[in-house]
Amino acid sequence: MTDTIEIPERSGTAFLLAAGQTLTVIDPRGVQVADLLAFNADDLAEVISSGRSLDYAETIFLTTGHILYSNRSRPMLSIIADTVGRHDFLLTPCSYDTFHHFYPDLPPHRGCFGNLAAALEPCGVAPDAIPTAFNCFMNVAVDGTTGILSVLPPISRAGDHIVFRAEMDLIIGLTACSAPASNGGSFKPIEYRVD
Amino acid sequence: MTDTIEIPERSGTAFLLAAGQTLTVIDPRGVQVADLLAFNADDLAEVISSGRSLDYAETIFLTTGHILYSNRSRPMLSIIADTVGRHDFLLTPCSYDTFHHFYPDLPPHRGCFGNLAAALEPCGVAPDAIPTAFNCFMNVAVDGTTGILSVLPPISRAGDHIVFRAEMDLIIGLTACSAPASNGGSFKPIEYRVD
Repeated sequence: MTDTIEIPERSGTAFLLAAGQTLTVIDPRGVQVADLLAFNADDLAEVISSGRSLDYAETIFLTTGHILYSNRSRPMLSIIADTVGRHDFLLTPCSYDTFHHFYPDLPPHRGCFGNLAAALEPCGVAPDAIPTAFNCFMNVAVDGTTGILSVLPPISRAGDHIVFRAEMDLIIGLTACSAPASNGGSFKPIEYRVD
Repeated sequence: MTDTIEIPERSGTAFLLAAGQTLTVIDPRGVQVADLLAFNADDLAEVISSGRSLDYAETIFLTTGHILYSNRSRPMLSIIADTVGRHDFLLTPCSYDTFHHFYPDLPPHRGCFGNLAAALEPCGVAPDAIPTAFNCFMNVAVDGTTGILSVLPPISRAGDHIVFRAEMDLIIGLTACSAPASNGGSFKPIEYRVD
């Protein structure tokens, strides 16, 4: 087993995940969110697709046994363990613009979008290529009648985690969330481990 | 007022829509779906974003008054009229692969994805750049408790329509849906008008 790595609060990172390796994303203190992106390491135009994954899963709540598909309908990551069961795959990572929109009274922050863009830039990923992320532990409720979306505090507790198996060689982007509404108003680190 | 143009069943088209022009998408016979994409005509890397649009609208059911945003958080299309009120912005256009997945007993079809890719190719849009579409009249129910997605027949009746105003110069991709589950098992044309 490899070391656990910390992503400091309001920051992000990028790394290679080889086919067959597992990625464990841990919420070490609870009630925190980690935005996850995946790109085919050999062809960056192939990228995680919320629309394809939701279509195949036939649910908005992906958990153990579900697959995150690419825009080419190929499996990128399989969820093989999940102690939480509530993650979001509807919303894009918050950005400077979304901060300005939702938190006009707070100092603006580049958000998970800016953190992912900075972490992925050395890998050759342009900011425009960042799609809707798989937002680990993010708790977005949908009212099935009205359609209204509500961003609620995560239900994750300290030590909760989700485990993915890579189905191809991937470049992963991963953050510790920067948006107050997504994590109950607190900013905390995220941890991950590659095995 | 310009002429109304028909998109034959199970096909697609692409055209320019200048800033300030309106696009009316019409369901001439009822219970049919039209997948809509938008790209900045001056910079194809700027594209319609479901994740941004849902985030700003705070609902999955976009209708009159809502805006379809780009991946750069800029307004691309404003919905200025809508006689239906139920459209989907969660699922990607069906493709050869999704046909194979959902309809293994039917002859495979390239679907709206293939039709959009073919129509947009002369405009310089690569298939990998096709994101989640705004699926006019598509009726996707979400169970807020379980998360389960159900693709139901559209509630649109003959002559129902939705009207968009372009907020920048756009390349539009538009289809008449090819997937049995999305349109109640029938294949029909879609009509549109640019004013």
